[in-house]
Amino acid sequence: MYTQRINALREKLGQLTLDQLLVTHPDNIFYLSGFTGSSAAILLSPGLPGRFITDFRYHERASANIAGLPLELTDSQLRPLQDVVSSLLPDGSRSRVGIEAGYMSFLGFSQLAATANIEPVPTVKLIETMRMRKDASEIALIREAVAMGEAVFSHAISVIGRETAERDIALEIEFQARRLGAEGMSFPPIVASGDHASRPHAGYTDRTLVAGAPLTIDMGVRLHNYCSDMTRTVFIGDCPQHWRAVYNTVREAKELAAASLRPGLRGCDVDKVARDFITEAGHGDKFGHGLGHGVGIAIHEDPRLLWTYEGVLESGNVVSNEPGIYLPGQGGVRIEDMMLLTDSGCENFNSLPTELQVIG
Amino acid sequence: MYTQRINALREKLGQLTLDQLLVTHPDNIFYLSGFTGSSAAILLSPGLPGRFITDFRYHERASANIAGLPLELTDSQLRPLQDVVSSLLPDGSRSRVGIEAGYMSFLGFSQLAATANIEPVPTVKLIETMRMRKDASEIALIREAVAMGEAVFSHAISVIGRETAERDIALEIEFQARRLGAEGMSFPPIVASGDHASRPHAGYTDRTLVAGAPLTIDMGVRLHNYCSDMTRTVFIGDCPQHWRAVYNTVREAKELAAASLRPGLRGCDVDKVARDFITEAGHGDKFGHGLGHGVGIAIHEDPRLLWTYEGVLESGNVVSNEPGIYLPGQGGVRIEDMMLLTDSGCENFNSLPTELQVIG
Repeated sequence: MYTQRINALREKLGQLTLDQLLVTHPDNIFYLSGFTGSSAAILLSPGLPGRFITDFRYHERASANIAGLPLELTDSQLRPLQDVVSSLLPDGSRSRVGIEAGYMSFLGFSQLAATANIEPVPTVKLIETMRMRKDASEIALIREAVAMGEAVFSHAISVIGRETAERDIALEIEFQARRLGAEGMSFPPIVASGDHASRPHAGYTDRTLVAGAPLTIDMGVRLHNYCSDMTRTVFIGDCPQHWRAVYNTVREAKELAAASLRPGLRGCDVDKVARDFITEAGHGDKFGHGLGHGVGIAIHEDPRLLWTYEGVLESGNVVSNEPGIYLPGQGGVRIEDMMLLTDSGCENFNSLPTELQVIG
Repeated sequence: MYTQRINALREKLGQLTLDQLLVTHPDNIFYLSGFTGSSAAILLSPGLPGRFITDFRYHERASANIAGLPLELTDSQLRPLQDVVSSLLPDGSRSRVGIEAGYMSFLGFSQLAATANIEPVPTVKLIETMRMRKDASEIALIREAVAMGEAVFSHAISVIGRETAERDIALEIEFQARRLGAEGMSFPPIVASGDHASRPHAGYTDRTLVAGAPLTIDMGVRLHNYCSDMTRTVFIGDCPQHWRAVYNTVREAKELAAASLRPGLRGCDVDKVARDFITEAGHGDKFGHGLGHGVGIAIHEDPRLLWTYEGVLESGNVVSNEPGIYLPGQGGVRIEDMMLLTDSGCENFNSLPTELQVIG
């Protein structure tokens, strides 16, 4: 699997006339090797076997090689990366070494450029583009993360009582995820009750849940280094009629988007399906974010379902589908599932129902 | 407080002949303003009032100004940072805009450089250098974080029984920290029993604690965005004689280092005090890391107590003091407190005892 990814990347390097690629972003290192330590780099060339660079702290974990790449052990506290890379390249000429321009710091770039046998060459999203199409092993891991996320969500909902605070639910989510074996959360949970739910990116507070109002819970777990992401909005005690209408509009927008989602469409096309429906219902200006985003090793990655994103969707993409309507000062509704693009359309990773639910 | 820090920084800018400084590192933004959102920047000039740049998601939180800086709200998804900065600078000439070269990506730098009225100028550790000397308000927050860290540690130790696994203790640490109100951990806890304790950066496993062997717990909480960091090594069931000797060597090395710690010494001088003592005891090659590191908004920051660090210590520095001896395949001992440098010497933030403790 890792060998396959590394070989696919090698082919790209040849096309870019790079002598080497220096991979330093931890997500990309994990994608290419399964390594999760904090201090590592991969140096790849189109032809030669490449090198996995890490420091002595990971010596035992790293053993003799990682993903088939011979190990180069270094003491990163004492030996800067540019010196290690330089020692692995021929003397007497400058090797064209691709770097990840969106991640490597300007200082890191300058230090490479000041090294006699290195010509750093900016590259953008080389590996991120590969990561957009999930392979079978990734799809299996994401399926597992989503299932755990739903178990955590169900547990969190089960503890809601009269005096429950937003914070109590957030902690239950975090604790249950860790108890079940998650490495952590994809992002700090959002538990937003009443008017708090009118802000798409609210966190949580010490406030007790507001009766007769929406409660939005947006959460995901990180399992085997893959993220899950889901949102449900439930109502506490009672759901007033005007909220029922808003809820059903969001739910239907989500179902329309899911029905349209298939390879060949642009991200903006799918966003438009949900947005047009919400606009017709009179709430177009209350849906201030994109319909969805890619999910994988990173919680937010390409492709996007966003009005400005013209990239074409492909089989193997994994995206969130999360329309919302936010009424300032009153509250909001968002419903989110994670979707896999298949050859013929899409599949929903989630199985928890989306029917309007009144709790407590 | 924030105004004072911003003014101190402004003086530096004048000396560097910068027209503006663009601050993008979240730790530095927090230091200058108290803002903890994920999407923000500060644009400062030596004379003018400056600008706090954030997006609409933080609109409510941000109100009219932050730390006395007028707000510039933007939609970061649609309007790139270089466009926002450009619109705030005079047309017709290039303003010299300092950037944080160790943090800003090469791509971000290139995008600024491609903007007609911006000449990006690399700066290194301008604000990090200021952050080395903690002021009274920071010292109070760190004191609070250390006290909570000790409460969490004591709780974790109290749950140890015959069948406890490393992982059980790690989860107790995380859960108790969150229950007590910490934002999270400074870093994933290290709970290393038996031979696992021979790796300074072990995490934790599902393994049950090993009897007659050391258990090393290294942990810290993040409270009000400041870190704590502490380590204790205890023995499970019994402490064999050879471990007793190792333990006492580490403990004495730590006390000697603490007795020497004062402003005016270089970081390497203090490292040497502990290292020489451990070397004389015959374990010099078993102490593979530095004696300590600065702690504050970041868990690892300057100054360092490390054999290669020649920077001079000052009053207001906060550093860890954490000698260790690691016997491959057998286990290890590390003891760590956090120290404040004062005008006359130093003060220990920690109060939990370091006497050898046998548990269970």
